[in-house]
Amino acid sequence: MLFHVRMDVHLPRDLPPEEAAEILAREKAYSQALQHSGKWRHIWRLAGEYANFSIFDVQDNAELHEILTGLPLFRFMKITVTPLLRHPSSIREDDS
Amino acid sequence: MLFHVRMDVHLPRDLPPEEAAEILAREKAYSQALQHSGKWRHIWRLAGEYANFSIFDVQDNAELHEILTGLPLFRFMKITVTPLLRHPSSIREDDS
Amino acid sequence: MLFHVRMDVHLPRDLPPEEAAEILAREKAYSQALQHSGKWRHIWRLAGEYANFSIFDVQDNAELHEILTGLPLFRFMKITVTPLLRHPSSIREDDS
Amino acid sequence: MLFHVRMDVHLPRDLPPEEAAEILAREKAYSQALQHSGKWRHIWRLAGEYANFSIFDVQDNAELHEILTGLPLFRFMKITVTPLLRHPSSIREDDS
Amino acid sequence: MLFHVRMDVHLPRDLPPEEAAEILAREKAYSQALQHSGKWRHIWRLAGEYANFSIFDVQDNAELHEILTGLPLFRFMKITVTPLLRHPSSIREDDS
Amino acid sequence: MLFHVRMDVHLPRDLPPEEAAEILAREKAYSQALQHSGKWRHIWRLAGEYANFSIFDVQDNAELHEILTGLPLFRFMKITVTPLLRHPSSIREDDS
Amino acid sequence: MLFHVRMDVHLPRDLPPEEAAEILAREKAYSQALQHSGKWRHIWRLAGEYANFSIFDVQDNAELHEILTGLPLFRFMKITVTPLLRHPSSIREDDS
Amino acid sequence: MLFHVRMDVHLPRDLPPEEAAEILAREKAYSQALQHSGKWRHIWRLAGEYANFSIFDVQDNAELHEILTGLPLFRFMKITVTPLLRHPSSIREDDS
Amino acid sequence: MLFHVRMDVHLPRDLPPEEAAEILAREKAYSQALQHSGKWRHIWRLAGEYANFSIFDVQDNAELHEILTGLPLFRFMKITVTPLLRHPSSIREDDS
Amino acid sequence: MLFHVRMDVHLPRDLPPEEAAEILAREKAYSQALQHSGKWRHIWRLAGEYANFSIFDVQDNAELHEILTGLPLFRFMKITVTPLLRHPSSIREDDS
Repeated sequence: MLFHVRMDVHLPRDLPPEEAAEILAREKAYSQALQHSGKWRHIWRLAGEYANFSIFDVQDNAELHEILTGLPLFRFMKITVTPLLRHPSSIREDDS
Repeated sequence: MLFHVRMDVHLPRDLPPEEAAEILAREKAYSQALQHSGKWRHIWRLAGEYANFSIFDVQDNAELHEILTGLPLFRFMKITVTPLLRHPSSIREDDS
Repeated sequence: MLFHVRMDVHLPRDLPPEEAAEILAREKAYSQALQHSGKWRHIWRLAGEYANFSIFDVQDNAELHEILTGLPLFRFMKITVTPLLRHPSSIREDDS
Repeated sequence: MLFHVRMDVHLPRDLPPEEAAEILAREKAYSQALQHSGKWRHIWRLAGEYANFSIFDVQDNAELHEILTGLPLFRFMKITVTPLLRHPSSIREDDS
Repeated sequence: MLFHVRMDVHLPRDLPPEEAAEILAREKAYSQALQHSGKWRHIWRLAGEYANFSIFDVQDNAELHEILTGLPLFRFMKITVTPLLRHPSSIREDDS
Repeated sequence: MLFHVRMDVHLPRDLPPEEAAEILAREKAYSQALQHSGKWRHIWRLAGEYANFSIFDVQDNAELHEILTGLPLFRFMKITVTPLLRHPSSIREDDS
Repeated sequence: MLFHVRMDVHLPRDLPPEEAAEILAREKAYSQALQHSGKWRHIWRLAGEYANFSIFDVQDNAELHEILTGLPLFRFMKITVTPLLRHPSSIREDDS
Repeated sequence: MLFHVRMDVHLPRDLPPEEAAEILAREKAYSQALQHSGKWRHIWRLAGEYANFSIFDVQDNAELHEILTGLPLFRFMKITVTPLLRHPSSIREDDS
Repeated sequence: MLFHVRMDVHLPRDLPPEEAAEILAREKAYSQALQHSGKWRHIWRLAGEYANFSIFDVQDNAELHEILTGLPLFRFMKITVTPLLRHPSSIREDDS
Repeated sequence: MLFHVRMDVHLPRDLPPEEAAEILAREKAYSQALQHSGKWRHIWRLAGEYANFSIFDVQDNAELHEILTGLPLFRFMKITVTPLLRHPSSIREDDS
């Protein structure tokens, strides 16, 4: 089941650089593991913004929530979730 | 070059059903031709709304504009465009 | 899987009363059939507004979309969907 | 009498972890006691957000206010209250 | 139990003057009967606007809804409801 | 002359409890003195919020401003002022 | 007593030109009579918009309301009222 | 050339009182010098708010910008600029 | 003196095609004449929208207003004006 | 390819003056180098605001992102990007 997620990141100025670097490294590893598993289908950067649009493919709302709240950057993010489905004009076999 | 586009459709009540059906058929054909060409990479329906999120892969802003204003439903749509780029955490070779 | 849905109804003034009555009767029957099936778990009126908050329990996003776009009043509604999950403080066995 | 309440939680970064843990434990106990009493009818988590939708069943506005301002997390919450009533299409005997 | 209600009136231009006059006369009678009964405690005009702030004193949410949806002008109004209670600094015996 | 005022209070977290208590005590005394004088006609709490709706009866805009900026909580408040007048449907002799 | 008023005009497309011309002529005469009387102190056009900022000097809220609702264009306007007073830094004897 | 300017002031809580007093004294002197010069035509306080509406009469946009950014309170203000012109209904010889 | 203007066009559906074509032809001629005169410095289309960003170089606010209200499409546009000036980092001799 | 960018700058109060001066000097040099290269086509100040409208001419979205995130002031800015294209009424040979 697909979800569209927008994530806006706001790192506080007083976050120590080493702590920030450590969080960002964990975030990248976390994201890439989920991409390899197929659950995090797409991730794109928005031009000029510290933000991304992502597509998740999960079992249900609970799994989506578990993934999002597990993000190392979660407490520094504003997250907007939109449930998706296959569009009747789509030419793809699956709904990706 | 990738763009994220949200389209919200509002068909006026006084649009004759045959005219609406004809426009929708042309819209579907138009969309599928662009999907087959690779320019319209993704299209997803938003649950509960007459709207879609789409990803376009075009040469430049002008080509995107030409495609969007050529939509048979264009005059009945509110369109929001966001330029995208490859995310540094993406595991994909291309930026799709 | 649970979803929170807000529906705001706007009946156009030029809708003939008989047509309105017929749509509202179908809407009620449609809603009650889904309530009996367990898919439409709750529906509440908002005081002073022609609107409701509802809770749906469906298989996935696609089923939710099918139910909502099948509403006889769908073309006269503004719909807002929010995916839900069990709250960690909930005392209920199921997530209702 | 039923009320729909949305609660959005924002824990400040400088809240000591022990203090946060203690507040959250009290919040959970407080919520569950009210759920057992029947006054806090439902609580659902919003996917991807530190927020909940809840349904309260109270005597009057004053009791609702007393319950909400008594929440251990109250000073860290944005709260939105909507008065509800039985929907004419509801199939339930009571208005739950 | 007290509620604060804001009503904004938008009469459509094509409403025949006699029909408008008849509705407004019924609205005034309806409002004054409820004021005499004590349920509609206050009504004030907003300077420069076709709108009012009102205070209602009713048994519960359902009675408020019944009163508001019974307004002859209801279908031409945007209504905003806020539940109130006695303020701890109020010097009044009752909560009026 | 009547004015409708909404006050939303935001006490900063680092305000020392004694200072907060002292300000709140002065606020209450200030408000009650103005209520006794008849200038602060009504004050109601909004359910679930640290906010009030109030009705003031003052000589002119300048007196209203003097009263509001004299509030001990003024620097912690967001204030919204709406000028009122007697509603043509009101049954009251005066405009209270 | 001074008030700041913003007026945004929206003439409907189907207003017959003669009727529009007649309303605009009455509006101008009405405005100029009030300017001569000193009650309508200032009126400025906003560049690029069919709107004005005006300053009124009236006895009270009721007189302001009477003037504004008497505008020939009233039913085609969105009006925003802000009560003003003398600024402590003003060098003017009166509050104009 | 006339401009309408709204200024909303937000003094941070940790600004030392002497520094605040010194800034406010400079602000007042700065404003009054510009009023005497005729460039700052009007300044009014908004009832209940730490804000003003002002009218400036300057050579061009650049002079307006120089005046506004020279305000001692500039870094504590939110400023909104609207270019004005003579209204066709105005009875004044000049556009003041 | 420079101004930034955003124009959003909304052609009503019931505008006869010949009338629309005639207005658009006049609009283009009007715009190009002003571009040749140097008063309309730039005009760009927003991708995916029936809108433009333009830069005007005019004597004063009144001339800008005269140009904008003279647009053949003026009554079908929403216009937003922002006064500009030379940026201190600009490398251009003039402020274009 | 052209993009319209709005940048709003918010320098935190606790930024040491020397650090601020050093960042602003780097920002100016960075901007002017890009202006000389032709990539940063225009930059204008908004009257009364610490903000600018800019026009960029870049290869693609990725280059725009690289330029914007490389701004020394980037972490103190809110940035809004709008993709542009040549307007059909433009008289310019190129799309500048």
